[in-house]
Amino acid sequence: MALVTIVGSGMMGSALAFPARENGNEVRIVGTHLDREIINRCKIENKHPKFNKEFPEGIDFYQIEELESALLGTDVVICGVSSFGVTWFAEKVLPVLPENVKMLAVTKGLIDSPDGKLITYLDFWKDKLNELGKNVSLNAIGGPCTSYELVAQDQTVVAFCGENMADLKYLKEVFQTDYYHIRLSTDITGIESAVALKNAYALGIALTIGLNQRAFGLDSEIHFNSQAAVFGHAVKEMYRLLEFQNALTLDNLCVGVGDLYVTVYGGRTRMIGILLGRGLDIDEAKAELDGVTLESLVISERVARVVKLNIEKGILKKEEFPLLLHIDEILTEKKAVNIPWDSFTL
Amino acid sequence: MALVTIVGSGMMGSALAFPARENGNEVRIVGTHLDREIINRCKIENKHPKFNKEFPEGIDFYQIEELESALLGTDVVICGVSSFGVTWFAEKVLPVLPENVKMLAVTKGLIDSPDGKLITYLDFWKDKLNELGKNVSLNAIGGPCTSYELVAQDQTVVAFCGENMADLKYLKEVFQTDYYHIRLSTDITGIESAVALKNAYALGIALTIGLNQRAFGLDSEIHFNSQAAVFGHAVKEMYRLLEFQNALTLDNLCVGVGDLYVTVYGGRTRMIGILLGRGLDIDEAKAELDGVTLESLVISERVARVVKLNIEKGILKKEEFPLLLHIDEILTEKKAVNIPWDSFTL
Repeated sequence: MALVTIVGSGMMGSALAFPARENGNEVRIVGTHLDREIINRCKIENKHPKFNKEFPEGIDFYQIEELESALLGTDVVICGVSSFGVTWFAEKVLPVLPENVKMLAVTKGLIDSPDGKLITYLDFWKDKLNELGKNVSLNAIGGPCTSYELVAQDQTVVAFCGENMADLKYLKEVFQTDYYHIRLSTDITGIESAVALKNAYALGIALTIGLNQRAFGLDSEIHFNSQAAVFGHAVKEMYRLLEFQNALTLDNLCVGVGDLYVTVYGGRTRMIGILLGRGLDIDEAKAELDGVTLESLVISERVARVVKLNIEKGILKKEEFPLLLHIDEILTEKKAVNIPWDSFTL
Repeated sequence: MALVTIVGSGMMGSALAFPARENGNEVRIVGTHLDREIINRCKIENKHPKFNKEFPEGIDFYQIEELESALLGTDVVICGVSSFGVTWFAEKVLPVLPENVKMLAVTKGLIDSPDGKLITYLDFWKDKLNELGKNVSLNAIGGPCTSYELVAQDQTVVAFCGENMADLKYLKEVFQTDYYHIRLSTDITGIESAVALKNAYALGIALTIGLNQRAFGLDSEIHFNSQAAVFGHAVKEMYRLLEFQNALTLDNLCVGVGDLYVTVYGGRTRMIGILLGRGLDIDEAKAELDGVTLESLVISERVARVVKLNIEKGILKKEEFPLLLHIDEILTEKKAVNIPWDSFTL
């Protein structure tokens, strides 16, 4: 039995409380400063406002001011913030983590560097920990898993990645259940890149749904030929980006492909893609989704910046990324959606 | 302008009449002996009974007895039969094809040989043509395309494969429109294997929908975590089978992945998978779908036979095909559906 502290009470972090607690671990959930109301409600109802099911019994909830007591004696810390909280987590949480604790991040994303590299959040946090002179085992979760389906106990297969196989095996023991199946990988860059990229490409696939709604009416049947055309091409661009990351393996690719599949149906990324496909520009689409966390926009812009820089350098080829570059035009130049179908046949 | 004769008035063959005719070609559709009623209705209504839209004007319809006059002067013959008609096509149609005609097959599948090989339908027909001493340019269509969405002019990207790039370019000219985009490939085994395999694996993915209906109720929300887990793993097994076929390229894989995506939503394969997932055995499921063409069962059993034979020979490894082997158990031994989730984490 382990003591698991979840920092960030968003949907994905909170969903992990289910397998963790059902396995008999002690579980604590700490909200960030943005989660104050969620934690208040959890304390009263033992239920996350976004889930339709109560938490298992015995979970303790903490406001951010109580972070240090929530971390007291903990074995595993889950980082449950979004991409927008990565720096906050580095500044506020890393300094107070117990020495040698095992951290497991659900945050999916990559950071672009000025010299055209894509680095993982684990790399970013590693640098911060080195500055602090602190040792923490950094691990992350990738693979297809939507929070509400994990809560519903839909069969789920994910990948835990980290530097150290012994720590990964320990984390697998803590979290695995008969519905939550865990692959282990020491290829952090591979898993993290694959599952970050899918947010950009899922947006690309969702564009076709909006395009069809514009062409055939909002209530028209969903068409899959165009979705599948973008899906197949998206896998090709993801393959090339994994290659660029020196992280191309069959396992990484398939984790990314599975995650791409679930993300097309996963809510927020789908919504923004559909709105853009219908003809809204990015500002109008964002306004429509006011307050929704849009990871897909962050990753699309970051990866596109790196791809464009490396095209300039002659390291990547423009004609190999027609979809990503079009997504980038839509997001950063407000160009109209006009999927480059024929470029997919080259 | 070309003269295009479609033999077999199933949905996919008939759907190709749309881009062909819209491009200004002369188009003839010939029903097989099983299509008599379809052709009768087409002659009266200029509409295929399964489509909700009339054919473009100017298409001529023929019963099978009129095959030879329908083939008179034709440039392109589309083979529109299903896997169940491949031998019939070899016996009845190949002998009367005009010399040097360009054939384009929509039939997706592979044939297993007693020594554990998987051969394409084009290979099978090539042997028959050699016996006849006849020269025909053999080509086929792969990639994600459901017939009714092609009819609806949903944006569609497919691959034409054949031995000869000049013939492929000619066929692309005949069929491409602003919604039907065509990649060209001389890798027949690669494209044909990729798009045949997806029928087996789409069935595997659909099992999870039925399993969830059994667990959560027929009207429960569709869950995607479990679908995505099988999807990701399916791509892995498809990759290994392409490798086995000496046809592993990024393009082939991505054509197969796109086709897998569309097939999960494509009707018949989805239906049989769901019924099996709900707990029906294969006989009960077939009875429920009486009269429906079930390509997925044919390909699953054929590929599984080859995989099992090659596992015995030590050429393939059992642990690399847990999904296919489970599908095979369900189909040939009536085993209950019990997806080997943990084997996907290895």
